[in-house]
Amino acid sequence: MAKKLVKEITSRDEDFAQWYTDVCRKAELMDYSEAKGFIIYRPYGYALWEGIKGYLDDQFKKTGHDNVYMPLVIPESLFLKEAEHVEGFAPETAIVTIGGNEELSERLIIRPTSETLFCNHYAKIIGSYRDLPKKYNQWCSVVRWEKTTRPFLRGSEFLWQEGHTVHKDEAEAREEALDILDVYEKLGKELLAIPFVIGKKTEKEKFAGAVDTYSVEALMHDGKALQSGTTHYLGTGFAKAFNINFQDSDGEVKLPHQTSWGVSTRLIGAVIMVHGDDSGLVLPPYLAPTQVIIIPIQSQKPGVLEACESLENELKDMGIRVKTDNSEKSPGWKFSESEMKGIPIRIEVGPRDLENGQVVIVKRYNGEKLPIDIEIAAESIPSLLQHIHDDMYQRALINVLDNTRTAETYAEFKKIIEQKAGYVQMMWCGDQACEEQIKADTTATSRCMPFDQTPIGKTCPVCGKEAKYLVYYAKAY
Amino acid sequence: MAKKLVKEITSRDEDFAQWYTDVCRKAELMDYSEAKGFIIYRPYGYALWEGIKGYLDDQFKKTGHDNVYMPLVIPESLFLKEAEHVEGFAPETAIVTIGGNEELSERLIIRPTSETLFCNHYAKIIGSYRDLPKKYNQWCSVVRWEKTTRPFLRGSEFLWQEGHTVHKDEAEAREEALDILDVYEKLGKELLAIPFVIGKKTEKEKFAGAVDTYSVEALMHDGKALQSGTTHYLGTGFAKAFNINFQDSDGEVKLPHQTSWGVSTRLIGAVIMVHGDDSGLVLPPYLAPTQVIIIPIQSQKPGVLEACESLENELKDMGIRVKTDNSEKSPGWKFSESEMKGIPIRIEVGPRDLENGQVVIVKRYNGEKLPIDIEIAAESIPSLLQHIHDDMYQRALINVLDNTRTAETYAEFKKIIEQKAGYVQMMWCGDQACEEQIKADTTATSRCMPFDQTPIGKTCPVCGKEAKYLVYYAKAY
Repeated sequence: MAKKLVKEITSRDEDFAQWYTDVCRKAELMDYSEAKGFIIYRPYGYALWEGIKGYLDDQFKKTGHDNVYMPLVIPESLFLKEAEHVEGFAPETAIVTIGGNEELSERLIIRPTSETLFCNHYAKIIGSYRDLPKKYNQWCSVVRWEKTTRPFLRGSEFLWQEGHTVHKDEAEAREEALDILDVYEKLGKELLAIPFVIGKKTEKEKFAGAVDTYSVEALMHDGKALQSGTTHYLGTGFAKAFNINFQDSDGEVKLPHQTSWGVSTRLIGAVIMVHGDDSGLVLPPYLAPTQVIIIPIQSQKPGVLEACESLENELKDMGIRVKTDNSEKSPGWKFSESEMKGIPIRIEVGPRDLENGQVVIVKRYNGEKLPIDIEIAAESIPSLLQHIHDDMYQRALINVLDNTRTAETYAEFKKIIEQKAGYVQMMWCGDQACEEQIKADTTATSRCMPFDQTPIGKTCPVCGKEAKYLVYYAKAY
Repeated sequence: MAKKLVKEITSRDEDFAQWYTDVCRKAELMDYSEAKGFIIYRPYGYALWEGIKGYLDDQFKKTGHDNVYMPLVIPESLFLKEAEHVEGFAPETAIVTIGGNEELSERLIIRPTSETLFCNHYAKIIGSYRDLPKKYNQWCSVVRWEKTTRPFLRGSEFLWQEGHTVHKDEAEAREEALDILDVYEKLGKELLAIPFVIGKKTEKEKFAGAVDTYSVEALMHDGKALQSGTTHYLGTGFAKAFNINFQDSDGEVKLPHQTSWGVSTRLIGAVIMVHGDDSGLVLPPYLAPTQVIIIPIQSQKPGVLEACESLENELKDMGIRVKTDNSEKSPGWKFSESEMKGIPIRIEVGPRDLENGQVVIVKRYNGEKLPIDIEIAAESIPSLLQHIHDDMYQRALINVLDNTRTAETYAEFKKIIEQKAGYVQMMWCGDQACEEQIKADTTATSRCMPFDQTPIGKTCPVCGKEAKYLVYYAKAY
């Protein structure tokens, strides 16, 4: 099977959805499998997940979390224990009914999320205040049956981490939910170069079974928002349903307070749609599996391959993830390919530049070319990577700021949502009816209530009642 | 729920199976879940798996393997494509028949292993000799329906890695299968302190769909063998069934040759049963999540906690995984607990020893105590860990050598198998009937045919025909 021309992708402005799928395929991030809605994470796509996983696992461990692994399946009776939770997840479950050639006496739900499994275990191992807090995390895949799926954004199976913690009181549990929100925000800042809008979800949009849900939201190139991670303060609802309690230091038996939180391979979708361009993927440098690609020009000329090799070795010794492409392909083809794959820095090593003691560095995110003395090329890379990261973050931040608008009337809101993309800030009375009205009229949904609640009006523009909250709305994935 | 006394475990000689389960529970490695045969990997147990995973992932990447992630489920039609493979796995599959509240039009098999998924994908992405080799690996869980289950050894779900590679010819594929066998053997030597017996499986014991299967076998304390990892040369059978082919550099279209290989959380069972003793787990130092535990004696006495803290910091700076137990429990309790958890080194810091400028180091694997000058305590730890590792490996090796016997007649074989534990080496004609006879008579099975095939006789002691192979037999898990 011949490889197709790498450049052949739809442009973003022509058809953003098609552009997205093209990038996913042509950058070899994923492939479709024979099971509808289940994708294959190819090496390059999986490496992005490994990057995210490595960063977060480190953060979780540093903050006292332990990894565990719970079963893939939940007996139906266990799954049905917490009512709101069931209501939220039951419609999208996949169910095992046959095992070892026999009909099972109890059906097994493939985990759509594992609150029920964690809670059942916690009930067994928690007895005293000395057993608290319990801060567990799990890396796994979950299954949620989806009718319409898109690579990384919505699939019947996705990879994620799910944290589940138990605390002696509400304050500590609430602090945990917010601490993890910070970790997710920092992941955006430090690794993904994505500025998240963070805040609290409305009742309508919160997690099935939570008291409060917080989220990090990212703004895609097409102006739609993508919920990129959530943390939940669960209160004592699960503890009640699963009979988790502990004897406190004062001798009283109490219900503990819980949290859960997660991010998924959706983040790969966010990276693609925040940074990508018409030549393909654009990867932030600290996430990129390959940070620098060295491409020889006229590699048969004396000195070219030697210069590539010595540059590669120098960079490797510095801990830079670097590769040299000395395959038979033409330099032009290699340029396109490295652009499609979003490699942050390309170094072109050609005989003419070498004569002048130079190589050419090309930055993927803005196409800028800079000839540089070969003697200092390697040592310039670390600060260049940092600079690219910072610039990509700034560019994405400016995009958020430029596309965050304020509506004082509902007419204004509808006009903005119809004509422009991005977030619209508007006051809200707190009634679900108004949220539903907005969604019905515009398809936009409330993304979150930011922590800075400085009011921009006194009434809810939809119903005219007293306004209680400032809300970010947007059309969303 | 109060914690039970840690010491309460069955002794190995009294009831080895019960001892094993006791250690799994009391060392807090696992717990049972509500779904029969599915276990919960608790933090301490999961940390062992993370240790194994970290070591192997590194080795795989260094040798040019890429991680990927394939779907959890296999459409039944895809699963049925390779006949021998189906025959081997069909009886133990779990099947999803309902998704999103609807009966599925095609049943989905939860992966018992992923050859079919990899092959289907390989058929799409391989077209030319330039696409080869493909060396993929996946970390995931698989499901095989088991009637009788034991923690880590046999369960309906287990964690593993599965490598799947495609090569241009037989020689390269066979080399890969043997190279990975080396990696597994080194894992035993360098991390688990387990000397594996390695060799080729007989036809009867090989993987469903393989041409040749190789394995690493470990000898447990009770003298039974545990198959601890396998690598398979698959030939071109899967390539044929899944229509994988490539145009070679000579222009001809050819079938590629494949391998697959894996180790699982079974290795945790091996570590428990090779090294453990009547006080609990005994962990090899490089695998141990905590390598050194510092226990203060009379911590209220001046200087004790300070000495612990400074020792802990010194060890941390050296990269040693160290913890101080300054909980309210008694020192005796803490000793038992750290023994149950198999922590390789315990440092007791008490006021009397401190007066003499000393602390006491206790080695878990042999109980040896040695007072040591506090000034050099920390710096002695790295070489002590190496020494403990080497000694544990030697002890396990001697156990294998002491329990490997030779039988020249079948009567002798039966006598040894009945009276003593361990491996018995015996010649074999190559007929499956003789293997089956041995199993029926003694429950022992052929473990492998070692690479050193120096004959120890000319005929098969079971049937009297000409002997072709030297075989290791043992009762096995």
